[in-house]
Amino acid sequence: MSFNLRISRLHLLKGLTTVSRAISPKSPLPSLSGIKFDLTKEGLTLLASDGEITISTTIKQSIGNEDVINVIEEGSILLAGRYITEIIRKIESERVGIELIDSNLIRVFDNNSNFNLNGFRVEDYPNIDFNPEGVTLTISSDDLKTAISQTAFAASDKETRPILTGVNIKAENKKLHFTSTDSYRLATKVIELQQNVEFNVTIPAKNLTEVERLIDNESMVELHISDRKVIFNLNGTIISSKVHNSPYPDTSRLIPSTFESKFDTLAGVLISAIDRASLLSIDRNNIVKLSLTPERAEISSKSQEIGSVVETIDSFTYEGPRLDISFTAKYAIEAIRAIGTENVTILFNGDMKPFVIKNNEDDSNIQLLLPVRTY
Amino acid sequence: MSFNLRISRLHLLKGLTTVSRAISPKSPLPSLSGIKFDLTKEGLTLLASDGEITISTTIKQSIGNEDVINVIEEGSILLAGRYITEIIRKIESERVGIELIDSNLIRVFDNNSNFNLNGFRVEDYPNIDFNPEGVTLTISSDDLKTAISQTAFAASDKETRPILTGVNIKAENKKLHFTSTDSYRLATKVIELQQNVEFNVTIPAKNLTEVERLIDNESMVELHISDRKVIFNLNGTIISSKVHNSPYPDTSRLIPSTFESKFDTLAGVLISAIDRASLLSIDRNNIVKLSLTPERAEISSKSQEIGSVVETIDSFTYEGPRLDISFTAKYAIEAIRAIGTENVTILFNGDMKPFVIKNNEDDSNIQLLLPVRTY
Repeated sequence: MSFNLRISRLHLLKGLTTVSRAISPKSPLPSLSGIKFDLTKEGLTLLASDGEITISTTIKQSIGNEDVINVIEEGSILLAGRYITEIIRKIESERVGIELIDSNLIRVFDNNSNFNLNGFRVEDYPNIDFNPEGVTLTISSDDLKTAISQTAFAASDKETRPILTGVNIKAENKKLHFTSTDSYRLATKVIELQQNVEFNVTIPAKNLTEVERLIDNESMVELHISDRKVIFNLNGTIISSKVHNSPYPDTSRLIPSTFESKFDTLAGVLISAIDRASLLSIDRNNIVKLSLTPERAEISSKSQEIGSVVETIDSFTYEGPRLDISFTAKYAIEAIRAIGTENVTILFNGDMKPFVIKNNEDDSNIQLLLPVRTY
Repeated sequence: MSFNLRISRLHLLKGLTTVSRAISPKSPLPSLSGIKFDLTKEGLTLLASDGEITISTTIKQSIGNEDVINVIEEGSILLAGRYITEIIRKIESERVGIELIDSNLIRVFDNNSNFNLNGFRVEDYPNIDFNPEGVTLTISSDDLKTAISQTAFAASDKETRPILTGVNIKAENKKLHFTSTDSYRLATKVIELQQNVEFNVTIPAKNLTEVERLIDNESMVELHISDRKVIFNLNGTIISSKVHNSPYPDTSRLIPSTFESKFDTLAGVLISAIDRASLLSIDRNNIVKLSLTPERAEISSKSQEIGSVVETIDSFTYEGPRLDISFTAKYAIEAIRAIGTENVTILFNGDMKPFVIKNNEDDSNIQLLLPVRTY
């Protein structure tokens, strides 16, 4: 048993914060609260897992002419993730040493600080399977990041229907379809693919959010998709996520293909108006009403106790019959933000039918919302 | 009944945030959840109170050539504090209108937003007594701000001995003595006075913290101190605080006048070392040990489960016998921060006696800490 290195503190800190989101703070398996350090001549690989997501990152021994790591003795250790990350964050030197000094006692030090930490037994760490399986796909990291940010928020945060806590990703006809719904709203995104691959998999939305967070400045991401796991291979960082085994509900017929009315306005103006109107709907589940005629666009809300509000939107076009439709302010704001463009288009089929929020020139991202019946 | 104005939104927002800290979110008296607006030709006075602290601020009708307020109809209204502040924060125009439109219905508007808010009945608001009583004292606002920041944090946050939740302020011999203690630590500060006044009053520490927060760029603060209340008169803002009626415990003999050893070091280095050492003392009430000889200064901590840490301090002087003294990291860090100087001096009388943290050249601010027995 051995392990001894000197390492650039900031590179180590970046690696620790990369993997530490996968640590399970109260795992039944104590070793899963640890971060595994594997040191070879090539560099240091850090790994953390909660059984549902595993994140691993490799710090290379050198970058250009800089020795990021002095490898003194290769080996593996397993350290309590919460403590080692805080220690490395708070130490002040540019370089720190980490050394296995006695069975599971690990010394972490610089000139002024000397921590002797009780490690876990490396042998107790579960074996993590990073073998690529199934279909391999390479896509632009910008595309992946955008697709996750436009869909993951709409997944359910309730475990009543576990499948809805995931984002469904389906590849067919050189297109990648992202779909998420919590049964009150639906978000879809389509990415064009270079490769013709086929798969259909549902990945926990929170794991995809970690992937989105970790995409840095690499240009491409390699995915390996099987019915057991999905592996995302970023530049030096690997994320493995479990997948949902039950089939994802068919949502393909939920998005209408024709609409009876169309509202175009500025996304920022609409978000601000909804946000202000929702100030008075705190006791009414955050519901606001949008009232539209070709001449007038208003967002309103009312509370018996507090009062009422009408927000007038100046700059818009509306084609269609008079409409009064109520919805959850938070869902509408999240959908408009997800679109991410200056202009936004909303398409309706009457006051009790689902409506679509999108960019007028772009059908690749569709946000569908259910109206709320008001009384 | 009338009330009608147009006002600069940012001036109004500043006034609302100034007074809104005094609002009692769950007062038994509903009107105390409101902010009172009194409009005269001179300007708009806002007032909020929870019965223990009252804050009032006046927005002048004009500043230089700028009409901050257009006074259309003078009068008074009472609006739910939480809502009006959020509405004024989120409206986007430079100028907003507020108008009483019907008994207690108040219209708050700009070009695009129109809120009709249910006001409270102004007559239901308790009468707040801002009459200056007792001793009057004028002191530098910087002195007052410093004195509060160096003492208020050491007051107790537990209601078991209510008097200890206050800061005692005593004037005698042209000196103003601030004292606070939670019985584990004691903070004192002395300010020189120009006037020869005498009083002895204990003010809730949290109310003093509000005074500290509201001192802006005025140079002097006028105080009116009686045995019922203390009024702080800032530039345009008046804070009235209740005072504690029971006598403050005599702490004058707790601070030793002689010491057997003396430790000088850099405040920042000491804070960082204590902070890092306390990382491993989470399961032991945040206790760290300082070990001193003329040759060596160390902060250490130990946890059966996690491990141990020794921090070495390079740059220091120590005169006295070998010392090992344990204390609460958080208390020591707060005391050293309160001193606020680059260098810090700690004076000891052995490992089980209270010790003093201060600046070597300044006796006006003394921080006394009790050591903790370790086992």
